[in-house]
Amino acid sequence: MSRPGIILFGHGARDPRWAVPFERLAQRLRGVPDAPPVSLAFLELMSPDLGGAIDALVAEGCDTIKVVPVFFGQGAHLRRDLPVLLDQCRLTRPNVTLLCTQAAGEDDAVLDALAAYALRA
Amino acid sequence: MSRPGIILFGHGARDPRWAVPFERLAQRLRGVPDAPPVSLAFLELMSPDLGGAIDALVAEGCDTIKVVPVFFGQGAHLRRDLPVLLDQCRLTRPNVTLLCTQAAGEDDAVLDALAAYALRA
Repeated sequence: MSRPGIILFGHGARDPRWAVPFERLAQRLRGVPDAPPVSLAFLELMSPDLGGAIDALVAEGCDTIKVVPVFFGQGAHLRRDLPVLLDQCRLTRPNVTLLCTQAAGEDDAVLDALAAYALRA
Repeated sequence: MSRPGIILFGHGARDPRWAVPFERLAQRLRGVPDAPPVSLAFLELMSPDLGGAIDALVAEGCDTIKVVPVFFGQGAHLRRDLPVLLDQCRLTRPNVTLLCTQAAGEDDAVLDALAAYALRA
């Protein structure tokens, strides 16, 4: 039986305050009953990176990890950089199954929430 | 009586496909009954910029424009770059009232939608 984990993958930024909503998002997921272990990971400027997050989840017993890109759009970071990182991690961690979803910002329900915020804010 | 408009302010990227969810978000808002005019604007790499978007909404009759940063976190782009842009636009367009909300990614309902996506995707 596979033991799942979730990585919330963000861009990263110099200002540590930038990561606050990512930490809140991870906390929300950790509060869901029976939710799998969750880690943040960042493309640049913040840690852990993708490999570090995978290793942390493996240390918690995960062997099937879903990477959720917390990006609005799918530009070069998701079309070019992330696939390279995923392939590197698959090569160096052959016992882990790595899956990757579409950018969260492409999801209809996320767009609905953003639209509601834009009207209400 | 003020005539409102909404600007969805994103980072911008080289790949035009990056903007697709932003366009879908703008279309969603335009589909809401009695929604004010909506424009996208980008910090860099895509057009229109903030001034161009303001001018387009003014041409549609808006005089009170709410800028909604479609960013997950509040890093240097929102804490440093956007306030400078807003002040420049206020100086050069004194007949327009410019308001600005928090980053959309700080909103609880947006975080809820992101969390649900991360579990479901």
